Amino acid sequence: MKTNVRNDYDALADRLKEKSRLGAVMGILHWDQEVIMPKGGAGSRARQLAAMASVLHEKSTDPEIGDLLDRLLDCPEAQFNHFEWCNIHEAKRDYDLDTKVPKELVRELAELSSNGHAVWAQARENDRFEDFAPTLKRLVELKTQWARCVAPEKAAYDANIDLFERDATMEKIEPLFASLKTELIPLIRDIVENGREVPASFLAGTFPLDRQERLGRRISEAMGFDFEKGRMDVSVHPFSGGGDFTDVRITTRYREDNFVESLFAVIHETGHGLYEQGRAREWQDLPVSESLTMGIHESQSLFWERMIAQGKPFLRHFLPLLQQTFPQQLNGVSADGLYGAINRVQPSLIRVEADEVTYPLHVILRFEIEQGLFDGSLAVDDLPGVWNGKMEEYLGVRPPTDREGVLQDVHWSGGAFGYFPSYTLGAMYACQFYRALKNSVPDIERSIAEGNLIPVKEWLNRNIHSRGKLYPAEELCRQVTGETLNPDHFVGYLKTKYGELYGLTGQTPS
Amino acid sequence: MKTNVRNDYDALADRLKEKSRLGAVMGILHWDQEVIMPKGGAGSRARQLAAMASVLHEKSTDPEIGDLLDRLLDCPEAQFNHFEWCNIHEAKRDYDLDTKVPKELVRELAELSSNGHAVWAQARENDRFEDFAPTLKRLVELKTQWARCVAPEKAAYDANIDLFERDATMEKIEPLFASLKTELIPLIRDIVENGREVPASFLAGTFPLDRQERLGRRISEAMGFDFEKGRMDVSVHPFSGGGDFTDVRITTRYREDNFVESLFAVIHETGHGLYEQGRAREWQDLPVSESLTMGIHESQSLFWERMIAQGKPFLRHFLPLLQQTFPQQLNGVSADGLYGAINRVQPSLIRVEADEVTYPLHVILRFEIEQGLFDGSLAVDDLPGVWNGKMEEYLGVRPPTDREGVLQDVHWSGGAFGYFPSYTLGAMYACQFYRALKNSVPDIERSIAEGNLIPVKEWLNRNIHSRGKLYPAEELCRQVTGETLNPDHFVGYLKTKYGELYGLTGQTPS
Repeated sequence: MKTNVRNDYDALADRLKEKSRLGAVMGILHWDQEVIMPKGGAGSRARQLAAMASVLHEKSTDPEIGDLLDRLLDCPEAQFNHFEWCNIHEAKRDYDLDTKVPKELVRELAELSSNGHAVWAQARENDRFEDFAPTLKRLVELKTQWARCVAPEKAAYDANIDLFERDATMEKIEPLFASLKTELIPLIRDIVENGREVPASFLAGTFPLDRQERLGRRISEAMGFDFEKGRMDVSVHPFSGGGDFTDVRITTRYREDNFVESLFAVIHETGHGLYEQGRAREWQDLPVSESLTMGIHESQSLFWERMIAQGKPFLRHFLPLLQQTFPQQLNGVSADGLYGAINRVQPSLIRVEADEVTYPLHVILRFEIEQGLFDGSLAVDDLPGVWNGKMEEYLGVRPPTDREGVLQDVHWSGGAFGYFPSYTLGAMYACQFYRALKNSVPDIERSIAEGNLIPVKEWLNRNIHSRGKLYPAEELCRQVTGETLNPDHFVGYLKTKYGELYGLTGQTPS
Repeated sequence: MKTNVRNDYDALADRLKEKSRLGAVMGILHWDQEVIMPKGGAGSRARQLAAMASVLHEKSTDPEIGDLLDRLLDCPEAQFNHFEWCNIHEAKRDYDLDTKVPKELVRELAELSSNGHAVWAQARENDRFEDFAPTLKRLVELKTQWARCVAPEKAAYDANIDLFERDATMEKIEPLFASLKTELIPLIRDIVENGREVPASFLAGTFPLDRQERLGRRISEAMGFDFEKGRMDVSVHPFSGGGDFTDVRITTRYREDNFVESLFAVIHETGHGLYEQGRAREWQDLPVSESLTMGIHESQSLFWERMIAQGKPFLRHFLPLLQQTFPQQLNGVSADGLYGAINRVQPSLIRVEADEVTYPLHVILRFEIEQGLFDGSLAVDDLPGVWNGKMEEYLGVRPPTDREGVLQDVHWSGGAFGYFPSYTLGAMYACQFYRALKNSVPDIERSIAEGNLIPVKEWLNRNIHSRGKLYPAEELCRQVTGETLNPDHFVGYLKTKYGELYGLTGQTPS
């Protein structure tokens, strides 16, 4: 690299590091707001966050970044190593996103997204979709305009998807989701019609919070979460956040009558947290070290939650610890009994409460609705009817209220369209990654059954976490599993597992 | 106010608010670092704080602020109300402090102050003053140069004092401290020679931490600390910090063998916290609402710690609660017995452990040494000898090591010269304010003895907290007490209180 090019690159890297550090500050403020902040501080905190957002916006749109990028992108790629080239391209992407949208649109979107949350929450409380509809209409309009600014060559919905799931498009997602629909709708119908009752009454009872907390912490530690570089606390909704990879903060919530929910929230958020803790330290504060897409992030939480912790080897090993923690409820329960109870399938109205078999259909429904909203084939006012019809068609249940239907999710009220597909892409990646892990470390399930989860964490560190943004998700998937996302693996996994569990005809037990 | 003047003022106010909000963010980050942050996050946190400091510096030195100030200060004062005028003048002061020092000097000072801490800590650990001496010399040189830049008309030490204790000067402090020396050195000698042993063995024992915490929280609440707009946590060194007045965070530390230390730390920090919570909300985020000086801040913590909580009415009321909390140690102890034990006088080596009679001499010693360092009459290399000589002269004790002598305080290692006087000015203000409170609310001690501390808090809110930076400290003191700081009140208070407690001849019991 020539001197002036090196100077330009270093100047760009300095600016990217500054942005990353200020972003980490925002992360701490958000965490603090959800976990620690006294109630009375809410108004001031909003103003502090606005001041920080404005500083970050100034830093992100500084024309000097544009000049540096112009000069660097004029150089032949060979002048940079792979990591540097990635940083330059990520910076370009962000700079375009930050500068291509007219201020007035940015302002209106920020305002409407912020107010939209309150409007939605009120409409949900009152079960009145019509109160939320005007906001939703305007948000779709604005996000269509926004898409035209940032990616005029793309369909508006694709530009929205791309924000969360880089390089994913309707064209790529549709066939994947079509396979899932084809296979899962009948599978769910078979499970329901089969009518087998999986005993789970031992999951009810009273589970002291301090015991739940100790249990969660112990399992998080067993998964390899580094508490010297992270924390675990309580918040209303579990999340993973904090500063950078040396300060990763996960949260859960506790209910005295349900330890499974909090435990699996801990495991899920630990999965997210391990991704962050596993980032490449030599590229600290630079884009190349950041997590790849929402789907890949979700693949990490679901990997641990579903592929590991809902699996037999894990449950077999941790059953004695669970029994020791909650002897009254769990003494006498077998590993198979626990496995069955944890993996019950039950079509239900609420996405966040869904099991792994029915969950994809909640997502597909939203994906189809978002497509319709953006291509104009679906009117906002028709949403409740369309929603309820699809619920009946896909899952055989019909929401009695919009609160349990179209008004249940927060995402749209903040202008987040195109986010939902990532949940199911994540589940599919998780399944495919787990298959690759079993292939490359044949005795991994024995290791898990012995309670040694570190080889799992290290495999994920090596193959996914440390690779940051180096490759597109499709390419990462190909490198790790030998092929791009293939719905057959996910469908096969679900059919085998639940065929066995529910004793379905024509299913081969694993 | 004319339109363009109004516009200028509003533009200035917006910038001041932004600075205040970003400053609050720094406050949260600092609190988080001391209380919550996982160890491993230290390196990243330092970089986040540096990024924030750099943003704040950019904002503070923006030439547009200078232009706005030039235009506003050209207008006749009558165009603004008192609060606005105060904001303009505070902004001018800060802008001058931020822009009058050459970048190179700012950089060297920042670096040396930051490294100085580690050098000092190591020197203290090894008890080797000579290892810290070169850093200290250079810091005095740089702070002399700095003073020449920010206030060329002042003596260098005065400019340093002014940073913490606005408008205080050597000329004003010297006669105050001279009175204290004249009166307190013989008082302390009398106490020591009198040899009366005040029983305090009941303050030793084991005090469970959860009980200490509940006790501290209960007393903090009784003082009127608003836990909806604040928190209380644990840190290595107790402090008061957080965001703005809606998010005030105090800390303490607990030792199982000593509940007095943590309880009085809670009371002290609650005093600071009440000052912050009591700021004028109509001027939120503007300088006029900020606390006045370090001395006035300390007057608020010491007001509660010494004037209230070390006094008989308070101890009489809370003795039953203390006994209920620690029955094993305190059952059978009388209110007078507790009062005596809490108020023991004992000349000692360490400032932060000193009682209210000996504390001022620790401060006066440092004030005299700092004067000598800045006027050139005292060489850094001679400090240990001078220190030990003064300790012997003032308090009759001689530090056996520099660790317990000249190396004990952190302040100089960070370039904070002129800070120490504020501690004793604060103690004097506290005493004079308490006298004014008793005069204006004659039955206040009955209220305290009944456990009703809210009238105390409200009097402080009204007379001190809500007045922010409206008046110089001297003027505030005159408004509240009818005169400027008068050492006779402080000396009289100490002589009466300790004359009675130690049965000294010629002292009249109160």
